[in-house]
Amino acid sequence: MNKIVLIGAGNVASNLGITLKEKGKEIVQVYSKTNSSSSLLAKKLNCDYTTDIKELKEEADLYIISVKDSAINEIVEQFPYENVLVSHTSGSVDIDVFSKKNVRPAVIYPLQTFSKDFLVDLSNSPILVEAANNEDLLKIKKIASEISDNVIHADSKQRSYSHLAAVFACNFSNHLFFIAEDILKKNNLSFDILKPLIKETFRKIESNSPYEVQTGPAVRNDKNIIKKHSELLSYSDSYQKIYNFISDNIVLNHLKKTDQN
Amino acid sequence: MNKIVLIGAGNVASNLGITLKEKGKEIVQVYSKTNSSSSLLAKKLNCDYTTDIKELKEEADLYIISVKDSAINEIVEQFPYENVLVSHTSGSVDIDVFSKKNVRPAVIYPLQTFSKDFLVDLSNSPILVEAANNEDLLKIKKIASEISDNVIHADSKQRSYSHLAAVFACNFSNHLFFIAEDILKKNNLSFDILKPLIKETFRKIESNSPYEVQTGPAVRNDKNIIKKHSELLSYSDSYQKIYNFISDNIVLNHLKKTDQN
Repeated sequence: MNKIVLIGAGNVASNLGITLKEKGKEIVQVYSKTNSSSSLLAKKLNCDYTTDIKELKEEADLYIISVKDSAINEIVEQFPYENVLVSHTSGSVDIDVFSKKNVRPAVIYPLQTFSKDFLVDLSNSPILVEAANNEDLLKIKKIASEISDNVIHADSKQRSYSHLAAVFACNFSNHLFFIAEDILKKNNLSFDILKPLIKETFRKIESNSPYEVQTGPAVRNDKNIIKKHSELLSYSDSYQKIYNFISDNIVLNHLKKTDQN
Repeated sequence: MNKIVLIGAGNVASNLGITLKEKGKEIVQVYSKTNSSSSLLAKKLNCDYTTDIKELKEEADLYIISVKDSAINEIVEQFPYENVLVSHTSGSVDIDVFSKKNVRPAVIYPLQTFSKDFLVDLSNSPILVEAANNEDLLKIKKIASEISDNVIHADSKQRSYSHLAAVFACNFSNHLFFIAEDILKKNNLSFDILKPLIKETFRKIESNSPYEVQTGPAVRNDKNIIKKHSELLSYSDSYQKIYNFISDNIVLNHLKKTDQN
């Protein structure tokens, strides 16, 4: 399991490729439709590159398809070899995407958020893996454990829900930070004033369930403040709706648990 | 400005009282309706306590009212002295709450989330202060700067919006973490798998605007994944609504900016 072909040259492909190379694996080739992307990553990895999928090298132990979800199907259709181990890296694409081809399918999904031009330390990030049989699963686990010490076997359904949970925890909480920043800006205040609070919010969930450490007007069911806040947001229909929806959901969830006690 | 009477014995009062005492201020008395709360905090602060508001000590330089928002009005009505400096600590209560009394009104609002039995380090937490005149503002700024090196003058409107922004950034993001945990639990996965991702999300906004570092299906306007996620949530009407609402708002905000470019 030493020779790897990387299909894709975006953030995830770059992070995986660079990390695997650091761990002594040989990236033998990078493929991307776009010449500039594939040549740039190939340069970083000191390997060949191609923009023609028919020219993928044949001798690789593993082909990693790390492209946007909507492009995976097309790559699979054009994939030129049989009986080789091929993995995608998506949270939401079922392993069945490979079913129309006679390949040995697998998934290596790093549960992390990737940024352009920034190498994320994946050593503690969970890698969710899946394969069609035990032998390939062992191989995939072994390669994933070169990237992270947190490798988890998860089926496609579990992986989908992990991705969905990640959207709530990462993308959506980040959007709430954006809304908070937007509200502050309108009132000539800097987003910086929230950073100690956000830091403390994160500190609390490191060793507690988020449910147990919830604070604020909604968990107290403080109708006066909720009403006041909602009125403060009357200038933005969408912010007001998000405020009311999440507040209602907090009230509901905490009332439910109280009822159960 | 050395002698302080603390009206209230909850999380905020305890944190402020203990911090101020550490900084050499003298807490001369704690008031709380509840005997057990006031005596417990008074013991920690090595001071007197009372459960009768008419027995508040007269000689204090500052009275800090740190009770839940809905109780502030009643405390103000019963407050027995005139011409003294009285501050509340609420994010959402206007300084006008003091207007029916002939006192020197002020506000000391620590923008932080407090937990029971846990002393938060307030030294970097913003303290939003307000007073009716410059002389008192200077006094309040001075005492707040004993607690934190981040004292900000903000009027009642700015303070309200700061509190509202804090609800989005802290309470609501924490609720999204709860939803994420709930989704994972239903699929036999641990919330722990999201912690490296949450940590990275936080790292990114330390030095970037949340808007600039947004990732995920919504910012890419990836309709297939958004639809799939929404379907995965068909078992919960409220989670599905929150998912769709926030996704729509991300799409909308990022399309808007693209249009402006």
